[in-house]
Amino acid sequence: MTKLHCSHRSRGVLADGRELFYYDSKPDRGRERYIDARELEARPAAPELRYDALRDEWVSVASARMSRPTLADSGCPLCPSASGAMTEIPSPDYEVAVFENRFPSFHGPVNVLEDGAMAKRAAGGRCEVVCFASEHDASFRDLDESRVTLVMDALADRTAQLSHLDEVAQVFCFENRGEDIGVTLHHPHGQIYGYPYVTPTSTRMLDSARKYRDRHGGNLFADLVARECEAEARIVAQNSDWVAFVPYSARWPFEVSIYPTVHVPDLAELPRQHRLSFGEVYLPVLRALDSVFDVSMPYISGWHQAPTRVDRDLAHLHLQLLSTRRAATKLKYPAGSESAMGAFVNDMSPEESAARLRDALPPAVSTSR
Amino acid sequence: MTKLHCSHRSRGVLADGRELFYYDSKPDRGRERYIDARELEARPAAPELRYDALRDEWVSVASARMSRPTLADSGCPLCPSASGAMTEIPSPDYEVAVFENRFPSFHGPVNVLEDGAMAKRAAGGRCEVVCFASEHDASFRDLDESRVTLVMDALADRTAQLSHLDEVAQVFCFENRGEDIGVTLHHPHGQIYGYPYVTPTSTRMLDSARKYRDRHGGNLFADLVARECEAEARIVAQNSDWVAFVPYSARWPFEVSIYPTVHVPDLAELPRQHRLSFGEVYLPVLRALDSVFDVSMPYISGWHQAPTRVDRDLAHLHLQLLSTRRAATKLKYPAGSESAMGAFVNDMSPEESAARLRDALPPAVSTSR
Repeated sequence: MTKLHCSHRSRGVLADGRELFYYDSKPDRGRERYIDARELEARPAAPELRYDALRDEWVSVASARMSRPTLADSGCPLCPSASGAMTEIPSPDYEVAVFENRFPSFHGPVNVLEDGAMAKRAAGGRCEVVCFASEHDASFRDLDESRVTLVMDALADRTAQLSHLDEVAQVFCFENRGEDIGVTLHHPHGQIYGYPYVTPTSTRMLDSARKYRDRHGGNLFADLVARECEAEARIVAQNSDWVAFVPYSARWPFEVSIYPTVHVPDLAELPRQHRLSFGEVYLPVLRALDSVFDVSMPYISGWHQAPTRVDRDLAHLHLQLLSTRRAATKLKYPAGSESAMGAFVNDMSPEESAARLRDALPPAVSTSR
Repeated sequence: MTKLHCSHRSRGVLADGRELFYYDSKPDRGRERYIDARELEARPAAPELRYDALRDEWVSVASARMSRPTLADSGCPLCPSASGAMTEIPSPDYEVAVFENRFPSFHGPVNVLEDGAMAKRAAGGRCEVVCFASEHDASFRDLDESRVTLVMDALADRTAQLSHLDEVAQVFCFENRGEDIGVTLHHPHGQIYGYPYVTPTSTRMLDSARKYRDRHGGNLFADLVARECEAEARIVAQNSDWVAFVPYSARWPFEVSIYPTVHVPDLAELPRQHRLSFGEVYLPVLRALDSVFDVSMPYISGWHQAPTRVDRDLAHLHLQLLSTRRAATKLKYPAGSESAMGAFVNDMSPEESAARLRDALPPAVSTSR
C-alpha cells in the first residue's frame, strides 16, 4: 500500500491481466488479498486509430466495444464482489476503485499501421473506469466532501501515472451521467481516457492561448476567468480556491466552467488545499442542476488538462460541466448544424442559465468570495 | 412566377413579413393568390453571436427559440392551409415550399455590438424551412425521383439567392429526421442556414485542402473520393453522376458521404444532370438505412458547400448523412470524449457499416458504375 499525499493506494490485478487500484482514506485495508476468480476471455485487440485527412483529426474505431454491457444486462459489474457474484472489483467493499476498462477506446502501445492520407495506427493509450462509491444507487451529488477529495486524489494520481506512459499524450477524466446521454451503467462512476494524441478541442484552445500570449503576454484562460469575475452576471458559486460560472459563449443550455484560483496544468499539480475544497463548490452546483427543473439532469463533466509533454505552461486546468436538458421535458440535441458544421446555437442565454442555477443553489452557498 | 432551369418559383409574403417561395414542376399554379390571414406577433429580435475566444468560434445565442413549437402542440404548421386552419403555407396545396424560419438562429444584418475577447455581434444571416411534400406523413425516402429533383432545384436556387446577401458567408442545407435526434415537427422538412461566418468544420476542411494543394497540387476532397473508389470496400452505391461511401474515418456507426462526380463548390453550380440523377443513389441509401435494423432511423443529412465568397475553388460539394443509431435499441451519444474533447470513438468499423448498408439496399441498385 502506497501513501499518496493523504490518501492510500493499493494495487490488484484482474483475471485477464488488467490493473486495478483501490484508493482509501485509511491505510492497510488489505484489499489486495481479494483475488479475481472469474474466467475472463482474453482482452480484445487494440482498436484502430484512423486519420481524418479532411478535419486533420484522429478517430478511434473500436468495434469490440459494440458488445459492452448495458443497463439491460443483469448484475452490476461495478458493485463490490460478493460470494457467488464476482464483479470487476474483487474486494467486498471499497471507497474509490479504478480499473482498466475491459472495452477500451484506446489500449496499449501506438504502432504505425499505414501512413499517408489514409493513415492508420494501433489506437494505443489507456482507458480506465473510476468507481466513486460502492453503493450502487449513489450519485456524485450525494457524496460527502471528504469522498470528493478522495476522488480528486485518485484522479490526480491516475493523471500522474498515465502521464508517464509513452503512448499517452493527454489524460481526460470525466463522468457521463444519465440514460439521456447514453450511460450504460447506473453505478456512480467516471472514466479516464489516456489519449495517444492531443484532442481536437485542446489543440484549438492551446492554439488560441499561444496566439493570445504572443499578442498580449498573458494567459488567455486566466484572463477570461478574470473577466467573468469582473462581469459577475454569470458567476454561479465560488470560494477562495474555486470559481464556477456559465461561460460567456456557452454552447449548452446549462454549462458551467469551474476553475481553480491557481494556474496549474493538471490535477496532478493541483495543490491539496484545492482538492480539499473542491466539493464545497462542485456539490452545490450539481445539486442546483437537479433542482432547476426538479428532475435528475443528464450531464457530462470533464477535466480539461494540459497535454502530458507539450504546452503545459499554456494550458489551465478547469472542469467543464454541461447538461443537454433545456426544459423539464426537452433535450438539446446536437443536430445538423452542430454535428455536421460544428456551429452551435444555444437557446438559453448564459445569463439566464446562471441566474437559474444561482436560484436553485442550496442555502448558504456563496456566490462571492 | 420565375422559371428556374426546369422548375418554377413563385413568391409570397407571410403575415409578419417573412418571405415564402413555392417550387413547382409545372408553371402558373397560381399559388401567389393565397394570402396569409393570420395575426402574427412581430418577429423576435435577432439572436446574438458571441465569440468563444478559447475555441476561436462563434456561438449563436437565440433565446427566442425556446418557445418554438414542438410535437406536443396541436396543428402542424407545415401542412397546407385549409379554411379555418391557417398554417405557415397559405396555399391549400404545394409541391415544395420554402419560407423564412419564424424562430431563426441567425437573422438580418450583422452588427458589431462589442469587440475584444468577449466580442458580440447581432447574429445576422438567414434561416429557412424547406417542406419536401404537402403530405404530413411522408418521409424523404418515399418521395419519387422527380420530387427529389425539384427539392434539389429548390436548394440550388435558395443557395444562389442567399449567397447574394452580404450577411451570409456560407449556406448549409440539411434535414434532421427522428425524435431521437430532437426533431420537433414530424412533417417532412429540411432547413437552410445562411451563416454569418464560415462554419468551424468547413474552416478546418478548407485549411486541410489548402495545405494539401500547396504540398501535392491536387484537390484533397477529389483525391480522397478517388481512393475510396479504388479501395471499394466502403462503397455503398453509385451511378455515373454520384458515388456514396462510408468514409475511411467515419465518426458515426452509420455515416455516408455522397459526392457528385464533378468538382463543384455548391448546389447552385451543380449541373442539372446531377440533380436529375441524385435520387437514384440517395433514395436507395435512405431506404437501406431504415432496413438495417428494420426500424426508422434517426438521421442528419446535410450538404457541405463552399463559403459564398472565399475558397470556392478549394471546397467540393458533398452530402454527409449520419445516423446515431448503433443497434436496433441502442443510440450512439456524443458524450464526454466527443462533446468536451472533440475526440470521436466509433464502435462500428466503416467496412462493416458499408457491408450492412449494401446488404440492405433494395434489389437492382448498383454498387458499381
